[in-house]
Amino acid sequence: MKRIESTQNGLVKHWKKLVLSKKDRDKAEEFIVEGFHLVEEALNTNGTVVHLMVTEGIELPANWNTENVQLIEMTKAVAKELIETEQSQGVFAHCKQPHYSPEEVKHWKKYLLIDAVQDPGNIGTMIRTADAAGIDAVILGKGSADPYNPKTVRSAQGSHFHIPVIKGDLNEWLAQLKQAGIHIIGTGLQQASEHYAIEPMQAFALIVGNEGSGVSEDYLRQADEVVKIPLYGKAESLNVAIATGILVYSFGRR
Amino acid sequence: MKRIESTQNGLVKHWKKLVLSKKDRDKAEEFIVEGFHLVEEALNTNGTVVHLMVTEGIELPANWNTENVQLIEMTKAVAKELIETEQSQGVFAHCKQPHYSPEEVKHWKKYLLIDAVQDPGNIGTMIRTADAAGIDAVILGKGSADPYNPKTVRSAQGSHFHIPVIKGDLNEWLAQLKQAGIHIIGTGLQQASEHYAIEPMQAFALIVGNEGSGVSEDYLRQADEVVKIPLYGKAESLNVAIATGILVYSFGRR
Repeated sequence: MKRIESTQNGLVKHWKKLVLSKKDRDKAEEFIVEGFHLVEEALNTNGTVVHLMVTEGIELPANWNTENVQLIEMTKAVAKELIETEQSQGVFAHCKQPHYSPEEVKHWKKYLLIDAVQDPGNIGTMIRTADAAGIDAVILGKGSADPYNPKTVRSAQGSHFHIPVIKGDLNEWLAQLKQAGIHIIGTGLQQASEHYAIEPMQAFALIVGNEGSGVSEDYLRQADEVVKIPLYGKAESLNVAIATGILVYSFGRR
Repeated sequence: MKRIESTQNGLVKHWKKLVLSKKDRDKAEEFIVEGFHLVEEALNTNGTVVHLMVTEGIELPANWNTENVQLIEMTKAVAKELIETEQSQGVFAHCKQPHYSPEEVKHWKKYLLIDAVQDPGNIGTMIRTADAAGIDAVILGKGSADPYNPKTVRSAQGSHFHIPVIKGDLNEWLAQLKQAGIHIIGTGLQQASEHYAIEPMQAFALIVGNEGSGVSEDYLRQADEVVKIPLYGKAESLNVAIATGILVYSFGRR
């Protein structure tokens, strides 16, 4: 097993950039996951893990298949460079961001489209919720937090390895979805039906939007219908991840 | 207007304790809110605000009714003692925790009971969601994060001032709710129906539980039925605040 002892090592510097900077994640099309649960999910996803990094003194589970993976031991000082949380488990994976072919996209029927949601924790929870609700793909438009932000990856609890999470142009996706005959549901307050009025569907694309301003008018105009969740009490709005959960379980009921 | 210039002032020390320590909040039965939106909600709630604190140089909105409130100006150095977030707006209210009489409780029909949910942000989002869904009261059992934790108060976005939020003994509340004929719905995985099978109700008490271990067996035994949200994808679970949102909007539909 290779061992790294210097925080000045080139790989360590690269990993640190992937932890800290969206720009570097975008450029390399890679990201870092931390902790036993997430690293195991990454290892179970073919062709994802570039390096498996383990801190000295940490024992890897015997049932992990590390055959096709480059395993690297790090000193505690090196691991510290990559640690974002207080409860670090000392095990990391350096992963590739996945790509999807047009052939794969053809099979997707249920979409969550995210317009400029800024909180990384919200994005992560939304990816996890979409996974749970049987959504086929999550598309993040411009202005949304990076889905490969370490906080987003933690909140999603492994769902990045279960469903496609794609950074894209929502206008292009909407055009493509309309052409495929997929029903587009926007969320907003103007001329909106109560979400309860919509029956569950086999194929749909739900658009949810920014924490403050909601979904852009530009996208709402392209929706087949616009829905809102009724506010029975005195709260002025719902958290966007909560609203997403209510809606995907409403329209996605099987 | 009274002005405080020393961080050693007794009131400042008291406020700082209320920001930092659950024990001190419990003892004083008080809490601190920060920011224009939350302070305005507090001012609109009769008998809540003990002191309204404003940092020097900050202008209060002309339409605020501060007649019955003791207004205090603080230097920036003093305000810094109370600041928890990077985006402080420099305005604070020192508030009393509310109490509810048995007479008031009689009118409540829809309850959210929270068993040992530990994340302050989750608790805040759940209070906000319960408010939106028209829940009449939120009851927090032992082991739950303090609803008056500054992070919880921020996440709830003012819903503390819209619906009763009560720290209590869930066994006592369950006995009382059963006696009042209110339908008790637990959440769990064993012998649970899909939540879709339950029709909306005029009166119910929904019990949700700890992020890792769910609702205690002890409380589930007292439920009239136990429900689960189906997981269609590969996610192992839902975030507890998301699950709460789905369920309160399912059973609380009007």
